[in-house]
Amino acid sequence: MAGSSVKPTPILKDELDIVIPTIRNLDFLEMWRPFFEQYHLIIVQDGDPSKIIKVPDGFDYELYNRNDINRILGPKASCISFKDSACRCFGYMVSKKKYIYTIDDDCFVAKNPSGELINALEQHIKNLLSPSTPFFFNTLYDPYREGADFVRGYPFSLREGAPTAVSHGLWLNIPDYDAPTQLVKPRERNTRYVDAVLTVPKGTLFPMCGMNLGFNRELIGPAMYFGLMGDGQPIGRYDDMWAGWCMKVICDHMGWGVKTGLPYIWNSKASNPFVNLKKEYKGIYWQEDLIPFFQSAVLPKECVTVQQCYIELAKQVKEKLGKVDPYFIKLADAMVTWIEAWDELNSSGEKSSKSTSK
Amino acid sequence: MAGSSVKPTPILKDELDIVIPTIRNLDFLEMWRPFFEQYHLIIVQDGDPSKIIKVPDGFDYELYNRNDINRILGPKASCISFKDSACRCFGYMVSKKKYIYTIDDDCFVAKNPSGELINALEQHIKNLLSPSTPFFFNTLYDPYREGADFVRGYPFSLREGAPTAVSHGLWLNIPDYDAPTQLVKPRERNTRYVDAVLTVPKGTLFPMCGMNLGFNRELIGPAMYFGLMGDGQPIGRYDDMWAGWCMKVICDHMGWGVKTGLPYIWNSKASNPFVNLKKEYKGIYWQEDLIPFFQSAVLPKECVTVQQCYIELAKQVKEKLGKVDPYFIKLADAMVTWIEAWDELNSSGEKSSKSTSK
Repeated sequence: MAGSSVKPTPILKDELDIVIPTIRNLDFLEMWRPFFEQYHLIIVQDGDPSKIIKVPDGFDYELYNRNDINRILGPKASCISFKDSACRCFGYMVSKKKYIYTIDDDCFVAKNPSGELINALEQHIKNLLSPSTPFFFNTLYDPYREGADFVRGYPFSLREGAPTAVSHGLWLNIPDYDAPTQLVKPRERNTRYVDAVLTVPKGTLFPMCGMNLGFNRELIGPAMYFGLMGDGQPIGRYDDMWAGWCMKVICDHMGWGVKTGLPYIWNSKASNPFVNLKKEYKGIYWQEDLIPFFQSAVLPKECVTVQQCYIELAKQVKEKLGKVDPYFIKLADAMVTWIEAWDELNSSGEKSSKSTSK
Repeated sequence: MAGSSVKPTPILKDELDIVIPTIRNLDFLEMWRPFFEQYHLIIVQDGDPSKIIKVPDGFDYELYNRNDINRILGPKASCISFKDSACRCFGYMVSKKKYIYTIDDDCFVAKNPSGELINALEQHIKNLLSPSTPFFFNTLYDPYREGADFVRGYPFSLREGAPTAVSHGLWLNIPDYDAPTQLVKPRERNTRYVDAVLTVPKGTLFPMCGMNLGFNRELIGPAMYFGLMGDGQPIGRYDDMWAGWCMKVICDHMGWGVKTGLPYIWNSKASNPFVNLKKEYKGIYWQEDLIPFFQSAVLPKECVTVQQCYIELAKQVKEKLGKVDPYFIKLADAMVTWIEAWDELNSSGEKSSKSTSK
């Protein structure tokens, strides 16, 4: 039976990179030291490349600033956002590891209801190493977890599950609200620890937040493009949403699973709702068209790789969302550029050149 | 915003019936007294009708045994199962209330992690009175709950939600496992209290358990038929599953929501896995065909009432599942009989005759 058979093994350092987008010194890593120190970090420095980002001693990392991105990608660097945490996806591209964990630099270690510090990365690894159940809902949540299983009425043919592509973790303290909700509920804090991991069913879209996110880069990496946001773009704060919707359509097509729930991190600081409103307002309007678009998007059977799926999706974005706003034509082109750049960096098996490496 | 605007009002006695199928004295009600005493009970006595079922003093109830069912429904009584808890759906039919809560007689009051007794009925009422979110997944679970809301990226046009038809509650202690899982894991107990309510997304099937279940009878009542099980039938323990799959297809068609999660009850006693295996084994085999059938079932736009949907579904069951086993032809006929009986009892606005009433 499921609950007793899955024993996730620890992922070795060689199999996972931690990607952190930032504009500041990474003091927040001190709290994560016991959990992160054995892993390699890929730091994507946003904003002014002349600024020096301090990383606490003892961490193994490489750091890329905008100059590095421009040098490595050349003209294709246009697909990587500037002055927006969307730039983090550059880190996914230059990694050569099987798994990625990405976290925001204002996220700290949360505590479970017993007061113990939560090893978020360990839980993501468990989520990624055990199967998902996208084809039928299990009412006792993750059936592969200890003490749980598939309930009566769950078809036996589906109990092997599907490969897990993405593990979406949640946030205690500051919830991930949009600007209007932040403005209306400035004091709301998430204090509810829900002790569950579940698979987002096939055919169902969800809002993927990039704050605390693990994924299998070998499976779904090329779909984890965080779009064109921030400097020079009409929109921000939809980078992770965009990636989540594209990724989910492709996972559904490929038969892979996406989990959400545990682990929690402690999100320390609400971003400014007025600034957020400015970044979001077009997105709030556009998403009313985006959701029906992604809900009805169908990928042809001929698409058998993530790259093929993504290029096809870019085509559909241009055709259908281009009518919503010319921005989506530019975004569709950037999606193609992203795949070209991904394939360029990931074809040789050789690691691309990098700048600061400790 | 959602979390602050929904204040479920208590459902008055006039709006809810509690339906209990049983073959024994209802001593278990003593523990539920503070939560159930103000409500009306409909007791459906299974098995030998000459047996006297004792109900603790102070409860307001009506009781139907097999003789009553035969007398009230006449030849149509053939659609109500005998010697199987599927008989409970007779109680849904004779109720005239807006809401139904049904519970098994081996289920006791559970405690939350703080050690407080859980008022399961109150939570079901909250679930049924607040909307569902079947069209898009909210990562912080029920957005209408206090302290929660819709997260960033959730389309605003979908935030009003959909009417909630069903509230599926869970079980601490003995999990609702099938016979093979019971046999393999005889000692497994569910000790994990997951503090969440969520909507099963549109297009997703789940295994609905009848042990601890609330629903809006006015909305979905005619679809809550628990099928032909037990005495004279080749199958048992699929009554609630059958109802759940039919109900979910119809809710998806009608645009209504189904919630699962809280509240928990304490399931005291595992049923005999050897007996269960005998009841289930054809179901375990057949469900491999049933699930694809229900996953691909489409109801035509012309079906605008639950009765019309259900009759159409019965037609598809006969056509497509009749090939799997002749049992499904008989079941499809019983589905039609059920609707005829439902309409007969529910057309006049008059309460049907009943036997023992306190």
